[in-house]
Amino acid sequence: MKLDVFMSPTEMSAGDTQGRVVAVIDVLRASTSIAVALNSGAKSVIPAETVDDVITLSKQFERSEVLLAGERRMVAIPGFDVGNSPLEFTPKAVEGCTVLISTTNGTRALLGIQGARDIVIASYVNLSAVTAMLRAAARSDTDISIVCAGDEGHFSLEDATCAGRYVSSIINRASSIVTNDAAHACALIDGMYGDNIEKIFKDSSHGKALAEAGFGDDLVAAAAVDSHPVVPIYQERQITRLGPDRER
Amino acid sequence: MKLDVFMSPTEMSAGDTQGRVVAVIDVLRASTSIAVALNSGAKSVIPAETVDDVITLSKQFERSEVLLAGERRMVAIPGFDVGNSPLEFTPKAVEGCTVLISTTNGTRALLGIQGARDIVIASYVNLSAVTAMLRAAARSDTDISIVCAGDEGHFSLEDATCAGRYVSSIINRASSIVTNDAAHACALIDGMYGDNIEKIFKDSSHGKALAEAGFGDDLVAAAAVDSHPVVPIYQERQITRLGPDRER
Repeated sequence: MKLDVFMSPTEMSAGDTQGRVVAVIDVLRASTSIAVALNSGAKSVIPAETVDDVITLSKQFERSEVLLAGERRMVAIPGFDVGNSPLEFTPKAVEGCTVLISTTNGTRALLGIQGARDIVIASYVNLSAVTAMLRAAARSDTDISIVCAGDEGHFSLEDATCAGRYVSSIINRASSIVTNDAAHACALIDGMYGDNIEKIFKDSSHGKALAEAGFGDDLVAAAAVDSHPVVPIYQERQITRLGPDRER
Repeated sequence: MKLDVFMSPTEMSAGDTQGRVVAVIDVLRASTSIAVALNSGAKSVIPAETVDDVITLSKQFERSEVLLAGERRMVAIPGFDVGNSPLEFTPKAVEGCTVLISTTNGTRALLGIQGARDIVIASYVNLSAVTAMLRAAARSDTDISIVCAGDEGHFSLEDATCAGRYVSSIINRASSIVTNDAAHACALIDGMYGDNIEKIFKDSSHGKALAEAGFGDDLVAAAAVDSHPVVPIYQERQITRLGPDRER
């Protein structure tokens, strides 16, 4: 089977995801925040591209049922309940709620995926949980695509390095996997950083920008491997937790 | 100044090349072949996307003045003089000729560049010559973009690793250079391969495909660092050699 990485959604064409299990990575910070929210008891997360989309969506719910989340230039959107910091998605804040989240790169990546068998949201905080699901796909000979959300269409170091960690974890157990050049390169970069994930964030443009904007604690949270062991599945425009109660 | 790498032309927007010195890399094999052709005495090289474009262009010349070059699925186009193997661009074949070459990825990359100050064709065979030109740009505080031609819009290992070699060679001498994430990642990958360029081609999809198709000697030629020390400049739809007779 094939295991392909796409450095940004702009690299993908329809055939690259058709019939595949697709993992979308936006480490800083949407993927991480979504995993944290679902692990903290959110009922579901609905990603939207624009602030207006979030407002429109929210009208389908009672105000108490939803949490409005999102950022522009890293800061919470005025009038919203929270920003896009994983630390904000506490059980107290999200338990039983539907989280409506505006994220530019992550949402665009999700909307660009066509014909996938399953779409899962991947990050470091849910590494082993999502890897287990991807390994199961590999065992059943289903091709896998890992899509880096990137930064406004550009390559993003932390997404690529995280993709490399998934690649290494999957091919570790199977020998008949054919990887594309990007998967090979990402695995090389991951190997260089090893377990020093905070160093990746120190080297990445967006990691540096977050640190400078005072979100250093978010970087620590995003680097906490397996701290939020959920498998977030995107289906019919919403993300829910795959688990014993939602067996597929 | 800024030194940015783009993993494929699909990542670029107009602002990414505006006013900059831009290096385009398509190591296997267009960039390499263009450098070899100019170093072998070709008057100029005109890249075209389609076979029909080459035929149309050729009508502006006497037949003896042009060399028709290009490949589809790695093999020379029927009726053309040569394919896209650097070994074919000997002095005997190209001396004094205008080479009309059909290359898909390289041509698309060139046509996608908007508003650049200068566009140069880079590869391993003309590494030091092109690096000298890029360092001069860096010294005059001109931003630099390195564009990997990639493979049908996808990331290509050999282009990214070669880009990383350029990044390392340029930042080696200057400290006030800000790189994007892709430049950083490419430099890391280049550092891992070091001078073992043939290993890069063994790991890359397109390198493997060329070896399997019997073009192993092309890989040896493409890995020969500084074997063809020319600076190919793309201007007004043609590529000519920057040199003492064409001082800029």
